[in-house]
Amino acid sequence: MKLTFELDHIGIAVESLSQGSAFYKTLGLGDMHVEEVPGEKVKVGMFELANDARIELLEPTQPDSAVAKFLKGRGPGIHHICLKVSDIRSILKALKAQGIKLVHEEPVPGAHNCLIAFIHPKSTGGILIELSESQGER
Amino acid sequence: MKLTFELDHIGIAVESLSQGSAFYKTLGLGDMHVEEVPGEKVKVGMFELANDARIELLEPTQPDSAVAKFLKGRGPGIHHICLKVSDIRSILKALKAQGIKLVHEEPVPGAHNCLIAFIHPKSTGGILIELSESQGER
Repeated sequence: MKLTFELDHIGIAVESLSQGSAFYKTLGLGDMHVEEVPGEKVKVGMFELANDARIELLEPTQPDSAVAKFLKGRGPGIHHICLKVSDIRSILKALKAQGIKLVHEEPVPGAHNCLIAFIHPKSTGGILIELSESQGER
Repeated sequence: MKLTFELDHIGIAVESLSQGSAFYKTLGLGDMHVEEVPGEKVKVGMFELANDARIELLEPTQPDSAVAKFLKGRGPGIHHICLKVSDIRSILKALKAQGIKLVHEEPVPGAHNCLIAFIHPKSTGGILIELSESQGER
């Protein structure tokens, strides 16, 4: 089966959703949908784009969340990019076999009824990449 | 007229296309299409994704290119994101009126028969954002 890849979202670390969303509202992206993801200790503010893609703003809810540490080290900016894939398990298996360093060797549950896994920036040229596979309706 | 926004591409600064593309080829993104953009003093390596979006690797061709300076300052990583819009001139006008700092107040020609303009990171929360409007066939 041919694997497919879509550019699903860009995850942007912000100090606060209200402050971080001001530019995107001025740009005209419309309403921001807010969701809390306790597992990642973040509140996520989502702007839907026309090609089934999103801009996701990430505000930490706890000082020990990965996004809080990112903000402390570098300030606001792009935290990760996410590719939607058709078969996350077979891709992770293939990447591991090729020596790619994975944060998750097995997918874990993410938001929107998805399975997700992160690939380590050491193996991607310095970028934190999330893979996501939909398990049905968002 | 309602404005539309799509997530068009992520621009990633790399030391060389051959080195920078290795991970994406391992991931299974298929063939990389290479194009030189003399105006920006870069060679661009493009991976097409399924939702009319792309990953674009940017290799500087001159030491004074913006991407070369970015690499020198920060090393390889995400250089910019690009949103495809339906009416770039009216958006730039509206952003300017709201006090958003623009790199280009008027759109300039980009690759693929597009008009493009960059928005300054100072006004976006630290992210270089490109707007792009298609002028017909790529």
